[in-house]
Amino acid sequence: MNFEPTGIDPLLDEALSAIATRSAFSGFKESGSSRIHGTEKPAAGKAAYEACLGQAFRLDDSEADFIAAEEVSPFTGEALGIRYAGPDPDRQFAAARAAMKGWASASVEQRIKLCVEMLRQVDEHGFEIAHAIMHTAGQSFPMAYAGSGANALDRGLEAVAWSWLMMNALPFQASWQKQVGAGDPVRLAKRWRLMPRGPAVVFCCASFPTWNGYPAMMANLACGNPVLVKPHPTAVLPMAIAVRIIRKVLAEAGFDPGLIQLVVDSSSKPLGKVLVEHDQAAIIDFTGSARFGSWVEQHAGNRPCYTETSGINTVILDGAEDIDAALDSVVNTLCLFSAQMCTSPQTFYVPASGMSDGNGRCLSADEVEAALAGRIDALAANPKRAASVMGCIQSPATLSLIDEWTGLAESGRYRLLHRSDHYAHPAGPDARTATPLVLGLDLEDGTAPQEEVFGPIAFVIRTADRDQALQHAADSARRHGAITAYLYSTDEDYIESATDAFAWAGAALTCNVTGNMPLNFSAAYSDLHVSGLNPAGNATLAEPSFITGRFRYAQVRRPLSGDGDE
Amino acid sequence: MNFEPTGIDPLLDEALSAIATRSAFSGFKESGSSRIHGTEKPAAGKAAYEACLGQAFRLDDSEADFIAAEEVSPFTGEALGIRYAGPDPDRQFAAARAAMKGWASASVEQRIKLCVEMLRQVDEHGFEIAHAIMHTAGQSFPMAYAGSGANALDRGLEAVAWSWLMMNALPFQASWQKQVGAGDPVRLAKRWRLMPRGPAVVFCCASFPTWNGYPAMMANLACGNPVLVKPHPTAVLPMAIAVRIIRKVLAEAGFDPGLIQLVVDSSSKPLGKVLVEHDQAAIIDFTGSARFGSWVEQHAGNRPCYTETSGINTVILDGAEDIDAALDSVVNTLCLFSAQMCTSPQTFYVPASGMSDGNGRCLSADEVEAALAGRIDALAANPKRAASVMGCIQSPATLSLIDEWTGLAESGRYRLLHRSDHYAHPAGPDARTATPLVLGLDLEDGTAPQEEVFGPIAFVIRTADRDQALQHAADSARRHGAITAYLYSTDEDYIESATDAFAWAGAALTCNVTGNMPLNFSAAYSDLHVSGLNPAGNATLAEPSFITGRFRYAQVRRPLSGDGDE
Repeated sequence: MNFEPTGIDPLLDEALSAIATRSAFSGFKESGSSRIHGTEKPAAGKAAYEACLGQAFRLDDSEADFIAAEEVSPFTGEALGIRYAGPDPDRQFAAARAAMKGWASASVEQRIKLCVEMLRQVDEHGFEIAHAIMHTAGQSFPMAYAGSGANALDRGLEAVAWSWLMMNALPFQASWQKQVGAGDPVRLAKRWRLMPRGPAVVFCCASFPTWNGYPAMMANLACGNPVLVKPHPTAVLPMAIAVRIIRKVLAEAGFDPGLIQLVVDSSSKPLGKVLVEHDQAAIIDFTGSARFGSWVEQHAGNRPCYTETSGINTVILDGAEDIDAALDSVVNTLCLFSAQMCTSPQTFYVPASGMSDGNGRCLSADEVEAALAGRIDALAANPKRAASVMGCIQSPATLSLIDEWTGLAESGRYRLLHRSDHYAHPAGPDARTATPLVLGLDLEDGTAPQEEVFGPIAFVIRTADRDQALQHAADSARRHGAITAYLYSTDEDYIESATDAFAWAGAALTCNVTGNMPLNFSAAYSDLHVSGLNPAGNATLAEPSFITGRFRYAQVRRPLSGDGDE
Repeated sequence: MNFEPTGIDPLLDEALSAIATRSAFSGFKESGSSRIHGTEKPAAGKAAYEACLGQAFRLDDSEADFIAAEEVSPFTGEALGIRYAGPDPDRQFAAARAAMKGWASASVEQRIKLCVEMLRQVDEHGFEIAHAIMHTAGQSFPMAYAGSGANALDRGLEAVAWSWLMMNALPFQASWQKQVGAGDPVRLAKRWRLMPRGPAVVFCCASFPTWNGYPAMMANLACGNPVLVKPHPTAVLPMAIAVRIIRKVLAEAGFDPGLIQLVVDSSSKPLGKVLVEHDQAAIIDFTGSARFGSWVEQHAGNRPCYTETSGINTVILDGAEDIDAALDSVVNTLCLFSAQMCTSPQTFYVPASGMSDGNGRCLSADEVEAALAGRIDALAANPKRAASVMGCIQSPATLSLIDEWTGLAESGRYRLLHRSDHYAHPAGPDARTATPLVLGLDLEDGTAPQEEVFGPIAFVIRTADRDQALQHAADSARRHGAITAYLYSTDEDYIESATDAFAWAGAALTCNVTGNMPLNFSAAYSDLHVSGLNPAGNATLAEPSFITGRFRYAQVRRPLSGDGDE
């Protein structure tokens, strides 16, 4: 790869440098603090969000037939009341196709430059989008600003940088000479041109729409493909704002804003399958449930299909130099955004022998379970910190799921290690909050879930020993999918076995990490997110496989005249 | 990309240099002449081929339950009588899986080095394989030695080189530091490991098995994946020889030869679908018919699937500086291996105004048709040259197809411009030969075929003008697939329009080329073969998209201790 500076945009060049070294970098501010931004910009962003409420959201003046979305704030319980232009897939695909030719004819440099500018302009609206994220996804403000803002924009910039790298993998012209039979050699001038595939459908999930949305949108646009963004009907606004900004950047540069459009559907009339099966859909980017993701993969046919679904992320608690620090980290990570992240841990393994620090201190399995529950209670008892860490529950269905699993414990199927409860949120009593439900079981009970249980519902599995834990955790990842795995152990041999087992299972392993960083933080430019090695998806953020299917080469050969080029 | 020399093998380094510059290179001898090889080696190769006849072909000593293949020499009409170990997909996939772990644990350098050595050893058996190709595929000796030998090995080496490039796109370890909250920064040591996907199924076609087979086999092996080779039941021997050689190279280097196996099926008990639908198949490489290829694409699900099928390759005859040279080239290319190549032209467009040289000479459309037919007759009248160019017809089904289309002409549906006939082959009267059938129609008749008609069956379509020809040719490529397109014109504006139209249609355009090189010669390291932009397949030989899906990354993060690495 040629990670050298391009001169196109400093942000791009810094991203390329970070990708080459896998070092920490952010092209955007991760903090929404007024100490950095002053007071005016945050207030203006909030006001811009509030001005959307109860209104028709217009991408352009031609839109008509507005429909109400299903957006209800998890913080206030109130409907946002925003209406969006009704969907019309045939017309929207046609508009995308019509917009594509001009965009594909732009130089790679021009497309890349504009993509970076789109991200910069989206970042300019970071506060507005953060409020939109809060009141649709339910994220706390710090997470909405950083995780759904800067971190997501970084993943977008990473995708732009990889698009640049892959589109420049080969020369665009060459002369070729070969002796064939007698007489003069054959001399040909060859030229190659990058061709887009066609309209991409980008599905965005409800709980974290921008983080996968931005890289998919950027990779497609950078490679010349128009994009139809299909947000979840309960989390339309963040993507609508981003799409409107991107359309403005395109239009101001003289391109057809039809290159990116919003397709708003509803739970009563879902359009996901219609979009995937549409004969004009050329690329699919999907983030969402394993069930629908699997359907998408089976129906993508020969079209590039990039998926991130879900799985069972596991934690093995064998031992730690500092047991308290280890338990702090896993509980904080479990509680982060109420475990509504694709990297949230779901299943904790505790060997019968408990956790040892290698220096004589040992917590029994009972004590480990109690320590996990105790730390959740301590967090919930501090409403300000709880609100910042846990945020709100995106969907009422998650509360129902918690009730359902609580019922299973009450019926004797699991030990009820920690009951989920509402925690007091500073936003008021209508905030939809829930501390994690923690259920205990013995591995031999055979009641370990065989799929992701979405939301703050965790399982502690007691195993005979750590080897049984590792075997079950890795097997679970391989069979049911997993994006991450977490391990605490002081035994290097065991760590090596686990590293190998999770490599084959395709779960990214974080081992013995403690401290301030959430364990599931996945750093753009450095961490590879989603391995493609298990059912949790194939859309690795980001390496060449995330890009290569999005464009193709056209070739033309002619006789070479003269000594030089054609 | 880093195309710098690796020091692993000079052949690899020369291939990387050629890829970077797209210049002409071959790592292998294209001529099988005794002036280069002496007399002993060619004779030994022929003898080795003949020693296979009527015998059981053993890959190793454990094989049992041999079954007869369906191989019949197109040159002699005699069955080869070779038996191969019977297929057992479950057992073979299990053996492939068992072999994979050791191979995946080898360093990238070691795998790459061995892959280059495999190609070198296969080349050592070039004469034996060339005779096997002749008597299964029906290719002439020069084509069997060059096209199915050196040129195919070059495509294989190109795939190894691209595997090297892509597997080295990213560093395998990094240290990462970031300030998160107060206190010490988070410092992590990160490591990545390349993981194979699992067993690949490589389908090889009957008429040109090695040319797509070698790159698929090499890309899979280089990236750590075992391979089950599924040859066409009428053309097993060339792949069986190659597989045996590769197994020997693997075994001698201490690896499990189960990394590459042969699955021999039969037309009465075809196993293609069983292999594709097998839950242990992780990658599919398919070369064959559009119909089955489409089925494969629809059933690959979320597994990487690389296809080359077929389409309608077109020739537009608008004008030429040297009309005779242009017609020589197109007829030679049509006749090459009796149009049984995926790049062979099928449809010729002649505008009503005929062909002009821009200097006053003009051939009417009638004269163009007559000139095409006349050139075929001239070639057929020279049996030695005809044998070298046309070779034999691989399948009796192709003769039936010729009869069928001749009947359509006799019934008045087409004008019979050139009747296909047996040509006298030096090998004797049993050689299955056929000159091209050429059928004429007017575009407005609506009788232009809408799919590939395999073999020496060509169509001349008269159009009102050249624009109509271009529109129809490009539309045909886009809708029905096409790998190549050919154009002769003296008008730069028209050439530019055609270049654009075929770029969007995904057919590689060869424009105004005359001389000794067959127009459909696709040079490894330089020409990109199959665009992925139309139904003719997505397996581009070779650029990153041919490689990236074949391996994945496993990641592990741990606290960084000390100042340096973990």
